[in-house]
Order: sequence, then structure tokens, then C-alpha cells
Amino acid sequence: MFKIGSLEKLIHELNRLPGVGPKTAQRLAYFILRTPEYSSQLRAALHQVEVMVHLCSQCFSYTDADDLCRYCTDPNRRDDLLCVVEEPSDIARVEGSGVFRGRYHVLQGAISPLDNVSPQDLKIRELLERVDAGLAGTKPKINEVILALDPDLEGDTTVLYLAKMLAPKDVKVTRIASGVPIGSDIDYVDDRTLGRALENRVEL
Amino acid sequence: MFKIGSLEKLIHELNRLPGVGPKTAQRLAYFILRTPEYSSQLRAALHQVEVMVHLCSQCFSYTDADDLCRYCTDPNRRDDLLCVVEEPSDIARVEGSGVFRGRYHVLQGAISPLDNVSPQDLKIRELLERVDAGLAGTKPKINEVILALDPDLEGDTTVLYLAKMLAPKDVKVTRIASGVPIGSDIDYVDDRTLGRALENRVEL
Repeated sequence: MFKIGSLEKLIHELNRLPGVGPKTAQRLAYFILRTPEYSSQLRAALHQVEVMVHLCSQCFSYTDADDLCRYCTDPNRRDDLLCVVEEPSDIARVEGSGVFRGRYHVLQGAISPLDNVSPQDLKIRELLERVDAGLAGTKPKINEVILALDPDLEGDTTVLYLAKMLAPKDVKVTRIASGVPIGSDIDYVDDRTLGRALENRVEL
Repeated sequence: MFKIGSLEKLIHELNRLPGVGPKTAQRLAYFILRTPEYSSQLRAALHQVEVMVHLCSQCFSYTDADDLCRYCTDPNRRDDLLCVVEEPSDIARVEGSGVFRGRYHVLQGAISPLDNVSPQDLKIRELLERVDAGLAGTKPKINEVILALDPDLEGDTTVLYLAKMLAPKDVKVTRIASGVPIGSDIDYVDDRTLGRALENRVEL
């Protein structure tokens, strides 16, 4: 009846964002229309990210520094601890915990045969090369690789694969603990989590 | 310690959207980074809205048509019914009901002394001129003005003001009914809504 208007187009694009349904998209679009300068400021921020942000050549996190990211270049971090995560956003979570001050390595996903993600699609080769370079002495030695992968099917599969690949090398491999979340109620914790919490019980 | 990066800037801008907290903003930013072409498509949609969308010179809804919006130019709508709403987004809600096929007038807000919004800040003068033009015969005659304003303090104030301004004119003024929402449970309806539903009871 009518051609698709600019506003409908914007609502359609906003609707593609995760967690944003048609009604939220409409509300966001009207906010954008109502708020002077916001649209151009958001466009500028998007454009800058498009132009500037790229993957760090060492850890494969996002960075807009020249080549290496802030975590790879920070002189106040330990070189012997390497935390392996699935996504760049996971780094912010680990940082939020405040208990890790080593380096990172981002796999850019997890092994998932159902989604056609095999080890070759991930930054696993690069991880092994990083460990090897430490052992060979061409890079700082890595003593411990901490696998901070999701405790789901894909994460478990990836942990098993990495454990096998790292086993022959002279490096300690650990995985973050699964168990009862802090502040939760044991009544509401699912069976598998509670089972894991019992298996991984800690001596006081 | 570090300069604010492009990614942090984007997260900051997304955080300004209504209902988007810091964590959601981060998730949206990572979605944008992960999704090829999305960023430029969203920028294009934003830019088009900035360039194209303006207020309809008759009803003050948003439009990217030349001068008048689709609701003002649609030949299949009745000219004698005028629905007055607060915001352009309210038109989509009224359209969704499917029971109104007249014209619209957007006030661009409601009277709110606390927020420094007085009648002069709204499109009230333009509404009265529209009604007058109908009565004078220079525009199609408006027989009924339906006030579809929010049933809150600001909406009530605006309804009272408009009723007073329209009273001397030869035009019927109505307000949409307040009452028990369809599909709701009377147990959970608040006192004032139920009171209004009783006052406005309909003879069967």
C-alpha cells in the first residue's frame, strides 16, 4: 500500500538486535527521533568502531590500539598465566571478578558439530603456538593455561579437546570451577550443578 | 589509565537508549561487532531517518512523505472524526486497535507544570485552528474530536484544558473509555481503574 518509510526501516534494523522485539524497536526508534543529536552521535560511534576496532594479533580480543590490545601490552600483568575464553566479551566478565591479572586468549567460539564449528574454525592453533613459543623461549613462558569456557556441551567438548592437545606439553591446564553460585539457595540449584559442586568440594 | 576506546564509546551511546542498561549495551555492542554489515546498515537507516523524517504540517506526526503524512492524505479515511494523541507513537497503538478510520492530531506531549510543559508548548493552537477551519468551511468539517490521551495526571489535565477550549465550538468532544483491560482479572485491577469502570458502566 505504502512504500517502506525511513522510520519503518530503522525499526526493522533495531529489531535485529538481540533481545529487541518489534515493540522495543519501535520505542527505541521514537526515542531516537525525539532526542536531538543522538542519532548522529550513535552513527559516529558505530562508524568509529567499524574503522578502528579489529582483532588483537596475539590474543584475538577486540582492540582499537595499533596491533596488540591493552591486555597484551599491560606491563602489570603476569605473563605466566593464560586465561582462555570463548568470546571477547568474556574477558570483561573475568576482569569484573578482579582475581585474574594474567594474559588472555580468545578462541572466538567453542567446538560445536551441530553448528559446523570444528577446532580449525577457532583460534586453537594460535593458542598452541603461543604455548609452544613460551616453551621454546622465544616468548615469555606460560606455566598455567586456565580454561574459562562455558559449562555447557560446547564448552565441555572444547575443554576435552584442548586438554588432549595441551597434555604432551610442559604446562599446567586447569578449568574454572563449577558449583553453587554465590548468594544462591541450594533449594533452587539444579541437580547437575549441585552434583558438580559435591564432586569439586574444597577442603577447609 | 587508557584512553576511551571506540568500543567503550559505542557501549556508552547504546546505554543511553531507554531500557538499555550497561550490560545490555555491552551485549548489543558485541552483537554489532560480530555481525558483518549490520553496523553500516544501521548507520544508513539512522542517516535516512535524520535526512527524511520530519513532522507532518497538518497532524504533527512523523512522516517522510513530502509535506503531509500518510494518515492525512489517505482518501479512505473519514474527515469528520479527529483523534487527538500525545505522541506520534500513539498513532500506531490506535491503528493497531483497528476500530478508528479517521484523521489524527498529535499534541507532541501533554500539559505538565512539573516538567514546564504548558499549553503553548503543545500543538493545541494548531488543533483549535484545524477545528475552526472545518467550521468555517475552508477545510472538511470535523464533527467529533476524540481525545485519546493517557489516563494519568498530565493526560487528565490536558483533557480538561482541551474540553474547555473546545466547548464554545460546534463540535462533539469525547474521551476514550477507562476501565478494566480485556483479558485481565478483576482481582488484580487497581481501585481507581475499577472505580472508573463502574462509573462508566455500559447498558447492555
